[in-house]
Amino acid sequence: MASVVTRIDAQLAFLTEADKLKSVVRGTTLCDGSRRENSGEHSWHIALYAMVLAEHANRPINIDRVIKMLLIHDIVEIDAGDNPIHGGHDPAKMEAIEQAAADRIFGLLPPDQAQAFRALWDEFEAAQSNDAIFAKSIDRVQPVVSNLETDGGTWPEYNVTAEQLQTRVGVKVQKGAPAIWAALKARIDDWFVRNTAN
Amino acid sequence: MASVVTRIDAQLAFLTEADKLKSVVRGTTLCDGSRRENSGEHSWHIALYAMVLAEHANRPINIDRVIKMLLIHDIVEIDAGDNPIHGGHDPAKMEAIEQAAADRIFGLLPPDQAQAFRALWDEFEAAQSNDAIFAKSIDRVQPVVSNLETDGGTWPEYNVTAEQLQTRVGVKVQKGAPAIWAALKARIDDWFVRNTAN
Ligand SMILES: [Ca+2]
Repeated sequence: MASVVTRIDAQLAFLTEADKLKSVVRGTTLCDGSRRENSGEHSWHIALYAMVLAEHANRPINIDRVIKMLLIHDIVEIDAGDNPIHGGHDPAKMEAIEQAAADRIFGLLPPDQAQAFRALWDEFEAAQSNDAIFAKSIDRVQPVVSNLETDGGTWPEYNVTAEQLQTRVGVKVQKGAPAIWAALKARIDDWFVRNTAN
Repeated sequence: MASVVTRIDAQLAFLTEADKLKSVVRGTTLCDGSRRENSGEHSWHIALYAMVLAEHANRPINIDRVIKMLLIHDIVEIDAGDNPIHGGHDPAKMEAIEQAAADRIFGLLPPDQAQAFRALWDEFEAAQSNDAIFAKSIDRVQPVVSNLETDGGTWPEYNVTAEQLQTRVGVKVQKGAPAIWAALKARIDDWFVRNTAN
């Protein structure tokens, strides 16, 4: 029993540390524009996105692994913060910070779980497996929907153009879930036509 | 293609409606006490709790189903609000409101998914299957940890006694995950000994 308690203590320490993700504020807002969303609620929302949109993956995926991947994909932000894709930052420096964060935070778990969670996070970061490619696609879809719901949302703030959106977001969504990007594209183009000065 | 777009439109409408769960404020606070948590980030946190603590289930479970169940378990709160277990409310009236909420919100999905999601939510509410019993246990564990992290948290506000905690929370956690309750019990008893006037 003593070792079970020790194990649960380590697991609860990790879960309590994970609570801090609710205080990491992201670039995008809620769909009603009332405030910026945090990375904890974002992680819930995209896990739900994956659950609902799994059928649109363009290659075989294991949705249960994708959901688990998405539940932990942003946990390193507790140390590293959120880095908006339109924000501009040093990728090599960010990667070093995120690797150290993964060491520290997943390291709170019992060793077997630390290893399994870290492997799943590494797979997401590598963006090579079918599951990771679909997870990355879904992670990019949700902010687009939020921005469309709030009349462009943070696009004007970051001076995002339709071309940048296609290059930085569209390409990645298309890689894992082209049908979803096709469905969004009409709405996106419509917004940019209405909001681009010429 | 037209029907795929229609299907994706319905799925995105559901996911956009689900966004409102981030604005439903719960009784318990973040582990640092800085603010009350919302039901969106709570749903992420307990899905992660289940993923980490699955091994402590006292009967066979399918953790992938449990996680999906937890991702949608609170969605009816968009219409019905959060009802703290120590708050006191009319259960029959609440159930009617939650059933109507489930009809409306899951009804936004394409019919096949509406039915599948509703069945999973009904199973959680019924609290009879192994998966639902464990999911309910986990849902009760997280607020206890949060309250312990914040020196009793909302217990004083609701005048919670050690006996009430055992009856309203402990019994339900023990039903699906007795080892977790055993690990928490020492911390709980210690807090009440230190904070109970006699
Ligand atoms: Ca709950």
